[in-house]
Order: sequence, then structure tokens, then C-alpha cells
Amino acid sequence: MTTLNIPMPREQLERIVRQAVRENFAQRLQSGEQQLSAAYTSNLVVNVSARHLHVSQEDLEKLFGPGAELTVYRWLYQPGEFASQQTVAIIGPRRRTIDKVRILGPVREATQAEISFTDSIALGIDAPVRPSGNIEDTPGCAVFGPAGVLELTRGVIRAERHVHMNPADAATYGFQDRQYLKLRVRSDCSTVFENVLCRVDSKVLLEVHLDTDEGNACDLVNATGVELLQ
Amino acid sequence: MTTLNIPMPREQLERIVRQAVRENFAQRLQSGEQQLSAAYTSNLVVNVSARHLHVSQEDLEKLFGPGAELTVYRWLYQPGEFASQQTVAIIGPRRRTIDKVRILGPVREATQAEISFTDSIALGIDAPVRPSGNIEDTPGCAVFGPAGVLELTRGVIRAERHVHMNPADAATYGFQDRQYLKLRVRSDCSTVFENVLCRVDSKVLLEVHLDTDEGNACDLVNATGVELLQ
Repeated sequence: MTTLNIPMPREQLERIVRQAVRENFAQRLQSGEQQLSAAYTSNLVVNVSARHLHVSQEDLEKLFGPGAELTVYRWLYQPGEFASQQTVAIIGPRRRTIDKVRILGPVREATQAEISFTDSIALGIDAPVRPSGNIEDTPGCAVFGPAGVLELTRGVIRAERHVHMNPADAATYGFQDRQYLKLRVRSDCSTVFENVLCRVDSKVLLEVHLDTDEGNACDLVNATGVELLQ
Repeated sequence: MTTLNIPMPREQLERIVRQAVRENFAQRLQSGEQQLSAAYTSNLVVNVSARHLHVSQEDLEKLFGPGAELTVYRWLYQPGEFASQQTVAIIGPRRRTIDKVRILGPVREATQAEISFTDSIALGIDAPVRPSGNIEDTPGCAVFGPAGVLELTRGVIRAERHVHMNPADAATYGFQDRQYLKLRVRSDCSTVFENVLCRVDSKVLLEVHLDTDEGNACDLVNATGVELLQ
């Protein structure tokens, strides 16, 4: 359960409504209303995921005490997802530590830490590149919360670059679920990221997730354009 | 002046000899000895430049005392270039510090600090992307050495991605000095870096320089292949 201490902001509600309109357009397009094609435009957003933790309810309670709940610090772009007020410290071998790692909510089935390669080097953990949720045979770490320590035996990964996409956007672009795409970012450090995993789901908004190394490599903050390529 | 406390390693001498042979091949190729073309192969090397400082002799003495000289910690790939035993601390606004920043030798005309965007965020300095040596209108920082403090009024940059190339390699690829090229790195995080500045000089070996963000974004350490593209 999540305590909705901060209401969803108006702009997020607006995005969800716009998305519903786009879905409707897409369905009508697919049933042959060709004159609508000019009306549908995908809105490609690229965001950087800073290092973070996903936690199970059980692990959350180990870290923050019995009955602990995640509370909203900031709503994320995807409906219902949020950066929580709860932060932890991640400790790697030889006691190297990264403090103030934010937990993203809502709680999930399995606990997993998503870090960049820069973090991986700082911690001394050889984190493999994995799609979120695919944590078999990955290294672990220790996680310190205010109420306890969690010994993760696995779950430290570098999240594989990916794009969340709903069926309407996938239809517009002609992309398939689980396909690998390319993302081109135009800036003073223009970069084409290959191996961008396409994840189609009807509940999501169109959004690419990079990590901080990737965001910094292409100077995403000052980018003048982004495009998805086959 | 540089104290050559560590002799150049055998493998570097071998590289320089091989390079001389390649130069000779290239000249003969250009004068029409076509049958030689199969014999010439460019040897593309991609290296990450960690954060570092270049210093003028005057600034070196401010930091390390009168008559100070850079001494070799490790020879770099380019003939005559080395990481020195001398390190400093760089301090940005609000006293944010990065310690143990290595000085690269030999000394240069102007002092300049080359950092990644990750460093730039850590220091609170908005470092622009610039080719090495182009430091007009760039931010400064404070530099702490064992013998004194240097107040740099400018010179903090993120080095523009670049490839050092001698005329033989440029002729082989068909590339020109000052042209922008692309570098494709194949790995689990395959990436095409655009805006790679080509710098042709007869004294250099073929080598691409990325910064740590770029190296981490494409997982250069585990790359299975690299190629330069027009």
C-alpha cells in the first residue's frame, strides 16, 4: 500500500487524459479512419533515472520498521510511479558506500538496486546490464535503512536502456514489444544509443529511460532534439 | 622540462616503430604503389581520459613550489605524454571538492582542467564542451597543490570527443583534419558517438579519447568492437 500524501499534480492528470485521447485516435486509425492520421502525434520524452532502489513490502519493513509505507516525494512521469521520501545507503565490498539512494514506489515483488557504471565502480560492484526485474545471477549488496540492514544476495543491476510505449505509440512508429530500437539525441555531444529495449504496455506513457552516465554522455539536459529509430 | 624518471616502456617504443613503418607505407601508397594497400592496417584504439589537469610551468611552480618538475607516474598511449606523479584538488563553488586529480605532462602553455559532466555536477561548475586548448569564456576553479593555491579564472572544460590521427591513417580512412566523425562502440550498451573531432598530426598514434561518462555509457571496458564512421 502507498500513502498518497501528495495528490497527483494537475499536469500529470492532463497527460493521462491526453494519452486516453491518443489511444482513442490510434484505435480509430487502426479501424481505417485514415483522415485522422494527421491528428495523432507521439510525444517522445527522454528522462534520466538516477540511481534508485525498488523494494518489496517485506524488505521495506526490514529497512523502515514493521508496517512501514512509502510516501510520495515527487511524482514521476509514468502514472502512479513516484520517488518516495524514503532513502537508504547502499554498501558494497570493502565498505564503500553511496548514501541517500531514493526508493521508487509503489512497492514491487522483488527488491532491486539500479545504479550507473560510475556508481558500480565507486561501490566496487560489477553490475551487469539487465532489463528491470531480470535479476537472476546478479551481485548483491548491503542496504542500510533507519530501522535495519538488508543483505541483498542479488539484485544490483545497471538498467538496460529502454523505452516505455503504449500500443498507440507502437502502432504509430511501427515498433513491436521487446524489439531493440535506437535513440538519437542531438546536442553538442550528439549520440545514438543502440540496444534500447522497447516495452509496450497499455498503462504507460511514451518515455525513454537512460541512466546518469548515458544522460551525461549525450548532455541530455541541453539536448536540442530526440528521435527513436528502427 | 620533464624529469624522465621512468624510461619509456618497450611496448611504447614498439608502437612508435610500427607507426614509422605505417607512415612509410602510406607515403609509398600515395605515390602509387597500389600493391601495398593490403599491407597497411590502421590500429584503432579507444581510451578514456579520466579527469585531469594540464599546467603551465608557472602554475606548476605555484602549486608545487619553485623549480617544480612533473615526474612520470605512467606513460600514456601517445608518444611523450604521461600521467604525472603530481596530483591536486579542484575546488568549485560552495567548497565542493574533487581530490587526487592527476596532472598530465609535459607542461603546456596554458593551464586547463578537463572533467566529465558527472564531475561538473559534483563540483557545481557548468563546464562547456570544448576542444582541448580552446578555453576562452570558460569557467574557472580553485586548484590546491602541496605548496600553494591557484585561482584559475578560466580553463574548466569537458573535452570534446576527439580522435588523434596521423596523415597515414587519415589517408587510409579518407578523413580530413578538423572533420567531425562518428565512433561506433559495440557492447551490451552499443553506442554511436557523433561529433568526434578529427585531429590530424604527424606526431600522433591513432587514438580516440572519450571521457568517463562516455566510456561508462557504452561500457567501453567490455566492448567487442570499435569503428570510425564518416
